[in-house]
Amino acid sequence: MAVFTLPSGEALAHWLEHGYAVGQLSGFECIVGGVQNSNFFVTTTLGRYVLTLFEDIARADLPYYLHLMAHLARHGLPVPAPVANRDNEYLGTLADRPAVLVSRLPGVSEAHPDAAHCARIGGMLAGLHLAGRSYGRRQPNPRGAHWRARAAALLRPHLPADDAALLDAELRFQADAEAAARLPVGAIHGDLFRDNVLWSGEHISGVIDFYFAGHDALLFDVAVTVNDWCATPDGGLDPARVEPLLIAYHAARPFTEAERAAWPAMLRAAALRFWLSRAIDQYLPRAGELVMKKNPGEYREILRQRMRAIPPLPASGTRR
Amino acid sequence: MAVFTLPSGEALAHWLEHGYAVGQLSGFECIVGGVQNSNFFVTTTLGRYVLTLFEDIARADLPYYLHLMAHLARHGLPVPAPVANRDNEYLGTLADRPAVLVSRLPGVSEAHPDAAHCARIGGMLAGLHLAGRSYGRRQPNPRGAHWRARAAALLRPHLPADDAALLDAELRFQADAEAAARLPVGAIHGDLFRDNVLWSGEHISGVIDFYFAGHDALLFDVAVTVNDWCATPDGGLDPARVEPLLIAYHAARPFTEAERAAWPAMLRAAALRFWLSRAIDQYLPRAGELVMKKNPGEYREILRQRMRAIPPLPASGTRR
Repeated sequence: MAVFTLPSGEALAHWLEHGYAVGQLSGFECIVGGVQNSNFFVTTTLGRYVLTLFEDIARADLPYYLHLMAHLARHGLPVPAPVANRDNEYLGTLADRPAVLVSRLPGVSEAHPDAAHCARIGGMLAGLHLAGRSYGRRQPNPRGAHWRARAAALLRPHLPADDAALLDAELRFQADAEAAARLPVGAIHGDLFRDNVLWSGEHISGVIDFYFAGHDALLFDVAVTVNDWCATPDGGLDPARVEPLLIAYHAARPFTEAERAAWPAMLRAAALRFWLSRAIDQYLPRAGELVMKKNPGEYREILRQRMRAIPPLPASGTRR
Repeated sequence: MAVFTLPSGEALAHWLEHGYAVGQLSGFECIVGGVQNSNFFVTTTLGRYVLTLFEDIARADLPYYLHLMAHLARHGLPVPAPVANRDNEYLGTLADRPAVLVSRLPGVSEAHPDAAHCARIGGMLAGLHLAGRSYGRRQPNPRGAHWRARAAALLRPHLPADDAALLDAELRFQADAEAAARLPVGAIHGDLFRDNVLWSGEHISGVIDFYFAGHDALLFDVAVTVNDWCATPDGGLDPARVEPLLIAYHAARPFTEAERAAWPAMLRAAALRFWLSRAIDQYLPRAGELVMKKNPGEYREILRQRMRAIPPLPASGTRR
């Protein structure tokens, strides 16, 4: 993000005490490591919350994300629940920024998930997709096919020749793959990486950062998740983690035949999305940007690996 | 309650797995000590919940309670949030009973609150009343003036002569007091006793049991709360607890002049409500009832004590 906004303690205390029903401010601290927004842990006499000031998401796009989080929390998923203010609205304004208070969830992220973690993640993701069926709002995946075309055009002149060739070939492949697919769609998280999941022991206690969510193929969400949670250091896939993740997902939300056919291409589309966004952060940084840059080469390798053999989705009769 | 319903593990597992998005059942246990309903701790692969099967509340009355809990939780209060099922409804059916799954909150109740606890309770109750302002549903207080008249008529023939005289005198006093009062009204908890609040250290981590909630004078809720949280063993009031509770409440939701005038009578009305309900449980038990009976004499003494001098509400200029 371009800036980090720090509200004064007085302004925050007044905003909470007069705008919400959460008691008086007793403490707040910055959360470092946020990628897009200014985030704070906020403690009041009534509870523990996270405050987010949005730095570069349009205000009009925020209700989709906030109501999706509320909807999923309402369905029993461990998702931060936005806190409504005294006007009964989730979205407020603080320090001239769109601002939201959400419940603070316990737990820590797991950098080295095993098969049991992956089974939990698969089951949770299916639950998220099932609960999302009754979510009424629609907003396109902000990193979907449209964004991909724009991002590729923007990025291409800056790429080394072999990367440009890889990109062109993959864009052609994806255009063909998409024309053929009729996949189940719905609300997706879109960025379900290991650092966006909190664990308390073996339990998932938090799924955070819904600001890449949107309406798209559910299988894209599965592919993003598998690419991160089940990757080996060289960008390959570890079947010992892929299989439990997919089987747990499939048990709650069975894959369709169209999804089985689309799976290899979808893993590549999901890899391409993160290669593109990371390459743009590298080659086209914005002035004053503070984002922690991630290595685009990692996802170029994952894309290359997914062009080889990949483990299939569970067959229709598979049970745990 | 008349019965305790125990669903089979198979039925519960199927109900959860096919009706909700909370993963698979991994454990459940009965909660003993419930007064009105059958309650269970339920653990799934995705979280920890409380399941309630309603034994003697009409199905039509339940949406008011469930949506109130959801509304308050949405406003950041530590209230169990009902979990929506795949039909996007809070209220389901299990073992032929109306059934609801809510989030399980941490903490334990505090039998011996001090001044600091009482200040927290006062602030929380004001937050609950403030958040309730934007709650759209209305349902009368199920233990309000109408119920009181019916309960008194039912009970009177069974009372000893001196109790009957006390009851008649108090009913006349309350009829006069109510005719004069124009008090702020809204959603009240109605039963905010010590055993309905969970604490994690000094923080309120849960406010439970909303099945006596309704639309009534906010001051009635304050009076019920003060009568329980600030009582001395002989039924008197401890000023060292009354004062911080009322001042913390007043700081967030200032008392009106009408409330100041009504306060002594309201403390008596709140005492009368629990004397009546406990006396009915004692003199007119229902067949097969398993309710843990509470001593009605305790609240008759509290009523008698409130007929004497009581600490006033904070004056309009009072600040912490």
